[in-house]
Amino acid sequence: MLTYQTLTDKVNAAIADIQFPKEPQGLYEPISYIMSFGGKRIRPVFMLLAAQLFNKDPERFMDAAVSLEIFHNYTLLHDDLMDNADFRRGKPTVHKRWDANTAILSGDAMFILSCKKMYNAVNENCPEAMTEFLKTQLEVIEGQQYDMNFETRMDVSLEEYFEMIRLKTGVLISSALKIGALLGGASKDEAELLYQYGAQIGKAFQVQDDYLDTFGDVKVFGKNIGGDIMEGKKTFLLISALKKANATQKLQMIDWLEKKDCEPLDKIDFITKMYIELGIPDDYNACMKDCYAKADNYLAKLHVPEDSKNELKVFADKLSYRNN
Amino acid sequence: MLTYQTLTDKVNAAIADIQFPKEPQGLYEPISYIMSFGGKRIRPVFMLLAAQLFNKDPERFMDAAVSLEIFHNYTLLHDDLMDNADFRRGKPTVHKRWDANTAILSGDAMFILSCKKMYNAVNENCPEAMTEFLKTQLEVIEGQQYDMNFETRMDVSLEEYFEMIRLKTGVLISSALKIGALLGGASKDEAELLYQYGAQIGKAFQVQDDYLDTFGDVKVFGKNIGGDIMEGKKTFLLISALKKANATQKLQMIDWLEKKDCEPLDKIDFITKMYIELGIPDDYNACMKDCYAKADNYLAKLHVPEDSKNELKVFADKLSYRNN
Repeated sequence: MLTYQTLTDKVNAAIADIQFPKEPQGLYEPISYIMSFGGKRIRPVFMLLAAQLFNKDPERFMDAAVSLEIFHNYTLLHDDLMDNADFRRGKPTVHKRWDANTAILSGDAMFILSCKKMYNAVNENCPEAMTEFLKTQLEVIEGQQYDMNFETRMDVSLEEYFEMIRLKTGVLISSALKIGALLGGASKDEAELLYQYGAQIGKAFQVQDDYLDTFGDVKVFGKNIGGDIMEGKKTFLLISALKKANATQKLQMIDWLEKKDCEPLDKIDFITKMYIELGIPDDYNACMKDCYAKADNYLAKLHVPEDSKNELKVFADKLSYRNN
Repeated sequence: MLTYQTLTDKVNAAIADIQFPKEPQGLYEPISYIMSFGGKRIRPVFMLLAAQLFNKDPERFMDAAVSLEIFHNYTLLHDDLMDNADFRRGKPTVHKRWDANTAILSGDAMFILSCKKMYNAVNENCPEAMTEFLKTQLEVIEGQQYDMNFETRMDVSLEEYFEMIRLKTGVLISSALKIGALLGGASKDEAELLYQYGAQIGKAFQVQDDYLDTFGDVKVFGKNIGGDIMEGKKTFLLISALKKANATQKLQMIDWLEKKDCEPLDKIDFITKMYIELGIPDDYNACMKDCYAKADNYLAKLHVPEDSKNELKVFADKLSYRNN
C-alpha cells in the first residue's frame, strides 16, 4: 500500500524524468519550464490512489497519470494567456517569459503530448480510458468558455456556477479517479462511484479556491488576496452574496465592483466585509461539509479493502485542510 | 469507382452535416464558421482516394476523413492568430470577427473534436491509424515552430526550408494517404509507399503556394500578391534567390526586404524582378517536376487497379495546375 505522499513523490520523479524532444527548442523548452513548477499533482495522485483500490501495483499506470498532469498544465498555460496572468506559483507565466505565440503553440504541443502518452499507455488494455479522457478534455474547454462568458454577466446563478466549475475543475478530477479505477480493473459501476466521488471533491476544491482567494493567508496562498474581487470574478462568494443581499446591499456591491479608479484595498475591504455581514463564510462551510459528506457516501458504497480507501480519504482530507 | 470530384462533394456534404454541440455558443459558433469556409479539402479527399485503392466502399471512412479536415482547420485558426492575419478565403479570421481568446479556445476545442472523431472512427479496427494521426499532429506543430523561427533568420538553407514544409504541410498529406490506405486494408509497405508519395505531393503543393504568392494571378489567388515578400517570409523563392545571388545582389535584396517605409509595390517589384533575373521560376519548375516524378515512381510501385490509381493522379495533377 503506497501512501499518497509516496505516490506524489513518484509522480514528481516521473515528471522530472520526462524526455521531451530537444528540437525545436522554442517549442519544448516552455513545456519543461511549466512542468517543473511543481504543484499538488492532484489528478495523477488521485488516479493512482484509485488504481490502488483495485490493483496492488498502481505504479505501472504512471504514464497515464503523467498524461493527466500534462493535460492539466496545458489548460493552465492557455488559461494564463487568456486571463493575461503574469505569474503562476511565483514564476513568470510562459507568455510573459516568452510571448503569446509561444504560449499558444507550446500549449498545443502539450495537448498532443498528453493524448499520445495516454493513448500509448491505455489503448491496448483499456480503450475506455482513452474515450473517457477525450470526453473530459472537451468538457474542460467548455468549462473555460462558460467561465469567460460569466465575466460580462452579473446575473450568474449558483446552479450555473456549479455547472461551470463541474466542467472546468470537477470532471478532470472525476475522470482521473475513473481512469485509475478502470486501469486497476474496477467494474464500470465501481469506476462510476469513484467518478461521482471525484465530482464532490472537485466541487469542494474549487469552492475552497474561491474562499482562499478572499479569506486565505497571503503568506501561504501564493497569490494576492482579493484578486478575484478586483477582477469581479463570479465566485461562490460573490454569487452567494449577490443572492442574499437586499436591494441596497446589492447596489452598493455592484457599485464598488464596477469602480475602476478606487484604491484596490478599499474595494477588497468593502466586499470582504459584506461577505462577512451576509454570513457567506457559513455558507462556504456548509457547502464544503455537504460535498465531503456526499463524497464519503459514494466511497462507502465501494467494496474494497478499508486501508486502501483510507489513503484516498487522507489525501482528500488533506486537500480540504489546505491553505494554499 | 468514385471520382475525386464526387469525393470532394461528399466530403463537403459531410462537413456541412457535422452536428457541433449548441452550447456554449461562444465556443462552437466560430468552429462552424471556419469549417464553412470551404477549400479544396485536399486531406480528406486524398485519404478517401487512398482508401479506394484497396476498398470499394471508401465512404465508410468519411468520419476519419472529416477528422483530418477539422485538425487542418484548427491549425489554420491558430496560425492565423499567430500571424495576425485579417482574412482567410476573403472572410474575417476568427480572432478578427471575435477575439484572440475565442480563437485560442475554439481552436483547442477543434483539436479535441478531431481527436475524438478519429478515435471513434478508427480505433476498433485500425488503431495504427490513430497512432499515425497523433504522431503527425505533433510534427505539424513542430513545423509551425520552425516556420516562426525562420522569421528572424536570413541564413535559412533550402534543406532547412524543405524540412520545415515537410513538417508543416507535407506530413499531414502523407498521413492522410497512409491512414486512408491502412483503413482500406493496405499492407504496411503499401501504406508506406503512399506516405512517400504524399510527401512529394505535399512538398510540391507548398513550393507552388510560395510561387503563386509572388507570380499568381491576383484575381484568382484569393490573397494579395507579394504578401510573402512584404513579410520577408523565408519561401522557396527567397531562399533560392539568396543562395544564387552574388554579393551585390544579395545586399540589394536584404536592403529592400528590410525597408519599412517604402511603397509596398516598389519592394514587391524589385524582389520579383530579382527572382526573374536569377532564374528562380526555372528552379521552381524543376523542383515541381522533380517532386511529381518522384511521386509517380512511388505510385508505380503500387500493385492496385490502374483506374483507381488514375483517379489519384488526376487529383494530384489538378492540384499542380491550380492557380489558387
